[in-house]
Amino acid sequence: MKQYGQWDDFNGRLWKEDIDVRDFVQKNYTPYVGDESFLAEPAEATNQLWGKLQELQKEERAKDGVLDMETEVVSGLTAYGPGYIDKKTKDLEQVVGLQTDKPLKRAFMPYGGIKMAEQACTTYGYQPSEKLHEIFTKYHKTHNQGVFDIYTPEMKKARHNKIITGLPDTYGRGRIVGDYRRVALYGIDFLIEKKMEDFNETERHGMKGTDFRLREEVADQLKALKEMKEMAAVYGYDISRPAKNAKEAVQWLYFGYLAAIKTQNGAAMSVGRISTFLDIYIQRDMEKGLLNEAQAQELIDHLVMKFRMVKFARIPSYNELFSGDPVWATLEVAGIGQDGRPMVTKNDFRFLHTLENMGPSPEPNLTVLYSSRLPESFKKYASHISIATSSIQYENDDVMRPVWGDDYSICCCVSATQTGKEMQFFGARANLAKCLLYAINGGVDVKSGEQVGPAYKPITSEYLDYDEVLDKYDAMMEWLAKLYVDTLNMIHYMHDKYYYEAAEMALIDTDVRRTFATGIAGFSHVVDSLSAIKYAKVKVIRDEAGTAVDFETEGDFPRYGNDDDCADDIAVWLLKTFMAKLRKCHTYRDSEPTTSILTITSNVVYGKATGSLPDGRKAGEPLAPGANPSYGAEQNGLLASLNSVAKLPYEEALDGISNTQTISPGALGHNPEERIDNLTHVLDGYFDQGAHHLNVNVFGKEKLIDAMEHPEKEEYANFTIRVSGYAVKFIDLTREQQMDVISRTCHAEM
Amino acid sequence: MKQYGQWDDFNGRLWKEDIDVRDFVQKNYTPYVGDESFLAEPAEATNQLWGKLQELQKEERAKDGVLDMETEVVSGLTAYGPGYIDKKTKDLEQVVGLQTDKPLKRAFMPYGGIKMAEQACTTYGYQPSEKLHEIFTKYHKTHNQGVFDIYTPEMKKARHNKIITGLPDTYGRGRIVGDYRRVALYGIDFLIEKKMEDFNETERHGMKGTDFRLREEVADQLKALKEMKEMAAVYGYDISRPAKNAKEAVQWLYFGYLAAIKTQNGAAMSVGRISTFLDIYIQRDMEKGLLNEAQAQELIDHLVMKFRMVKFARIPSYNELFSGDPVWATLEVAGIGQDGRPMVTKNDFRFLHTLENMGPSPEPNLTVLYSSRLPESFKKYASHISIATSSIQYENDDVMRPVWGDDYSICCCVSATQTGKEMQFFGARANLAKCLLYAINGGVDVKSGEQVGPAYKPITSEYLDYDEVLDKYDAMMEWLAKLYVDTLNMIHYMHDKYYYEAAEMALIDTDVRRTFATGIAGFSHVVDSLSAIKYAKVKVIRDEAGTAVDFETEGDFPRYGNDDDCADDIAVWLLKTFMAKLRKCHTYRDSEPTTSILTITSNVVYGKATGSLPDGRKAGEPLAPGANPSYGAEQNGLLASLNSVAKLPYEEALDGISNTQTISPGALGHNPEERIDNLTHVLDGYFDQGAHHLNVNVFGKEKLIDAMEHPEKEEYANFTIRVSGYAVKFIDLTREQQMDVISRTCHAEM
Repeated sequence: MKQYGQWDDFNGRLWKEDIDVRDFVQKNYTPYVGDESFLAEPAEATNQLWGKLQELQKEERAKDGVLDMETEVVSGLTAYGPGYIDKKTKDLEQVVGLQTDKPLKRAFMPYGGIKMAEQACTTYGYQPSEKLHEIFTKYHKTHNQGVFDIYTPEMKKARHNKIITGLPDTYGRGRIVGDYRRVALYGIDFLIEKKMEDFNETERHGMKGTDFRLREEVADQLKALKEMKEMAAVYGYDISRPAKNAKEAVQWLYFGYLAAIKTQNGAAMSVGRISTFLDIYIQRDMEKGLLNEAQAQELIDHLVMKFRMVKFARIPSYNELFSGDPVWATLEVAGIGQDGRPMVTKNDFRFLHTLENMGPSPEPNLTVLYSSRLPESFKKYASHISIATSSIQYENDDVMRPVWGDDYSICCCVSATQTGKEMQFFGARANLAKCLLYAINGGVDVKSGEQVGPAYKPITSEYLDYDEVLDKYDAMMEWLAKLYVDTLNMIHYMHDKYYYEAAEMALIDTDVRRTFATGIAGFSHVVDSLSAIKYAKVKVIRDEAGTAVDFETEGDFPRYGNDDDCADDIAVWLLKTFMAKLRKCHTYRDSEPTTSILTITSNVVYGKATGSLPDGRKAGEPLAPGANPSYGAEQNGLLASLNSVAKLPYEEALDGISNTQTISPGALGHNPEERIDNLTHVLDGYFDQGAHHLNVNVFGKEKLIDAMEHPEKEEYANFTIRVSGYAVKFIDLTREQQMDVISRTCHAEM
Repeated sequence: MKQYGQWDDFNGRLWKEDIDVRDFVQKNYTPYVGDESFLAEPAEATNQLWGKLQELQKEERAKDGVLDMETEVVSGLTAYGPGYIDKKTKDLEQVVGLQTDKPLKRAFMPYGGIKMAEQACTTYGYQPSEKLHEIFTKYHKTHNQGVFDIYTPEMKKARHNKIITGLPDTYGRGRIVGDYRRVALYGIDFLIEKKMEDFNETERHGMKGTDFRLREEVADQLKALKEMKEMAAVYGYDISRPAKNAKEAVQWLYFGYLAAIKTQNGAAMSVGRISTFLDIYIQRDMEKGLLNEAQAQELIDHLVMKFRMVKFARIPSYNELFSGDPVWATLEVAGIGQDGRPMVTKNDFRFLHTLENMGPSPEPNLTVLYSSRLPESFKKYASHISIATSSIQYENDDVMRPVWGDDYSICCCVSATQTGKEMQFFGARANLAKCLLYAINGGVDVKSGEQVGPAYKPITSEYLDYDEVLDKYDAMMEWLAKLYVDTLNMIHYMHDKYYYEAAEMALIDTDVRRTFATGIAGFSHVVDSLSAIKYAKVKVIRDEAGTAVDFETEGDFPRYGNDDDCADDIAVWLLKTFMAKLRKCHTYRDSEPTTSILTITSNVVYGKATGSLPDGRKAGEPLAPGANPSYGAEQNGLLASLNSVAKLPYEEALDGISNTQTISPGALGHNPEERIDNLTHVLDGYFDQGAHHLNVNVFGKEKLIDAMEHPEKEEYANFTIRVSGYAVKFIDLTREQQMDVISRTCHAEM
């Protein structure tokens, strides 16, 4: 058993024998059931630094969203010397470390794909390096090149026609959360020692290719750990040993995260479940009289400031999918332990309080792991923050805990992953709405006219027959599921080969559990379309080539989002059916397939590529986001809508079921207290039914319209809203996306 | 079925429907049973170019063996513009194309290992490029780095102690013979078409990692084929279409080989079985009156000149193993077809005749595929060339044909490989003599004192007991075989990953057969040692630590090399036993394990690392090379020695059984004709017994001693001798190796 001086006063034994942060947390955290009255105002340094950062953000916006870009240096753990928000005031920074040498400057990351890295530069007027171009085209293959070398024509066609879309084949796949707490608790030397043991354990007679791959991966992890020490040394810190106090713990942990964002540009680079962990260090320092509340809040404010600064160089087509420059620096608070104790600490209040101390912000993507059993005062404070900032999301700890335990992190928008024990193969999504049209049209894409799916017999009748449609849809989904998984398998093989996440995986157990995340787009439209076919009469409008290009629906039909089982049963059937088809496929590295109903802002782009549907949605119109009911479908108020979504079984969509709702403040109550109480009741009720996720926005349409028309107003600079799976500054959305948000249902009544 | 104008007058059909060069050869070659009287003298251009080349070779020798080196350009198919032996006389060159921009200039090839590539430069006074150093250390991992990242401590120790040795872990593994004839017969466009079909055929549902690897490999092959066209275009040739005449056929074929040696620096870069194939083109041109014998010989002379010019940058430790700068540009003549017709053509005479037209030379490594059924006049001509030049080797076509068919090539020293249908994972060798000492000493290495093998119970008795030794030797060989195969598996995994032979594999069937070549060193010493233990009394001399450091053998015992079954049975047992252990192991990519008894010149280095043995060989003395009986063991003349070696079953050593013999001219006869007849009889008799291979040297010891003392004499400039597995200019050997050659048995009687 290890025994470090830095661990004095900490309880427990298991976590000293082996890496086990969860055990450390459970043995040492101090639950807090009080209210927010203890919280401190921002420190003078916080105001000063945040003021500087806001200036930089303004400057960034004025420069089309990119303040500065690297073109000559390939990002890496030791690529830069130290960087500060402002060199002149660097001593004010309680937490140091930048991705590059300057704040908000975007790094050059070519391993995912040199073309994308270069296009990102030229898009914003920067000239990429010729030397690096030569290196990453002539000498070193990138992930992107590897994938395109082996894609099949069928895959390329499906990708081009966007029935499979958002694939991580040009950049990092992301969604891997290193257990950054390990750096603080154990120090790098202990982690190296343990990884070395793992490396030695992989030695056996008769090793095969998969053994060699693993050995090489662990060897790369060991190198990354050593380089992390160098990276920290540049800032004057020796992270070879455990952190000795709260300040070091925050700093060490951030260095772990910094290692991730210096080496990978995944769509989602989440922080994980760090709040309760850090509270233990703060609590110990406070008990020793080494830290007061103001200093504690300052540490958390500065750490959060760093998470607000994470940037990656992106290309326009990426921004279309993931609008508003998100990085999914997702960070969790609250949750309930396996022993029934709420894991809420004072630190969970502090993290939410950053939205008051420094104003609303999309990042870090603050996530409350919800249960109606959380302390009332915490639930109320969270509701208060939601109403004030529309910046946080809620996920149901009571449905996730049985699957992932009580130490999971959210690795992207809404997907849970066991911290330090699991990684995810991220896989974007399949457009099931397009797939329904392929079923009707025998694999022909309405938009391109190409034969994309298999040339099964199309439906030729004037009116659609439910059983016939279901038969053909089943066959077409079977094809799509196989092709989709095959495509993802290729991508992840090449990602492991050319862009392995050594720094993140160094902070995850070697014997890692792998999930294989897929996703569904167009969910509500398929449900409503099938309902229309079943309960109304759907007439097919065909073009000269005989392709169904539009539908005329006669009569009314039940729609998903009204707590009506006639429609909601179809929703459950659709999810179960597609998931069953995914489960039939071989998945890379024997990973466990999961799926999500989650679209991000990409619902707009997906909609553009999707023809008219029997539910009345016209060609090109945005799809409803995530698991949301379709626009205008909800006729029975917020609670009925939530009830419909809550029927979807989480165990069939372990990657998450995203629901985004906007409530007019007036609908919640007549005064702040009433609103807080009502929102808390809504959340309790929704999650007690087994629903998975809720994005809560509290504002009226008028505010959105005013912000769209007057983005220059100071009050809108940080105006944040929750969209499917993340938060975004409203003024950073494209006008098209702003219009989409405005058109969504804003519940004016419960 | 394809039909190109270039194929007019060619017979057959199968080879037009699919790639099948063997079918083309069988349907079109013209056997020749006449004598050498038709052969032509060297053309004026040949004399001029060869004269120039000899000057360059002299200059090269004066500069410590390296004329010039590249340091700034990474070798590749399109890395250079055109290069000529002499720009001023470039029109004289019937066959064009250099590895770099200048003759005998060595290319910079870092993919196998940047350290080796750089050390090769600095060894000869060249300064490696800093830019390339950065690229191949920071951005692109090399084969060597990959291997050392995952080697186990046990492997490193075994490698360091040289019980496993000569591993291809720092450069190209070589031993892959592209079917270079395909470039001539089909042209690149047809090959691209066929590989594209293969690529498409790998598409299936549920593809796994091995499928992705294959698809990426074929994609890389397709790129290589396209680049080969660019490479040829630099010299003004369009190789997209088939060769239309003999000159083009020779040139196209050479471009295929040039692609290999521009991209890979394997120890062995063999040419393959091209002689009969090219004869078909020459014959057609002659019949049309487009070519005469002098012109035909000129084409072959110039092609051979190009093979004599192949160079790679090597490091001193490599040169110790493979002395004299060999490249194993092995090239076959003769053989018998499956239909019983000898495949000897006039071209086979022409290739041997190059040794007269341009004097003896180690390269190309000319190999006669022997059968007593070959035409008498050809056998005699080959014997004549052997006696005159000591530059050729013989391999038994009658034992190889049943295993490999009638279109195999020799891919290194002596190993057969089906041309265009097979590749080999080359694996150096295990020192079975050291292994015997490990068995006696419980895994302790006499030389280093380290515990290298498993710590089994050592033998502690004063006198060695045969059964006890055999028991322990069996267990130690079991360990060695497993470790050896595991090590090779790692190497080949990493070679495929970081240094894949795209250009060579592009000229081999996609559905390739893979053999896994291992090798045995110290063979005769183990046999004789075991014989000593069995038939005499062997007393162990131990040091203070109890390690057996020497042996005193009392009494006489049968030795391998005297046609005595008492010893020879042990030899057969040893081979079968080790091979059976290798077969038990899982081999990379489900390859077929084979073994060889073959040491190259490395017998000297291996000997240095090996302690004293019970057969009387003292610590540090060279081992006998290949399957040769030990020095001084042969007491009954050449034929008895040959008979012993011939007893080794080829099917247990499919990678080859190398035997090198030196015969004093006087022993062969009193005049040239008698010598020719006698050598032919010796070869007939040896090979009719089923022996596999023979290197034939004809000279006396006095010549060797004189050459060693007076290397400056003009007559020794090209004095070539056969050593284990290849030919070498005697004066290019180290003095140590010269002494070793001199000390070998020179048969003064039959």
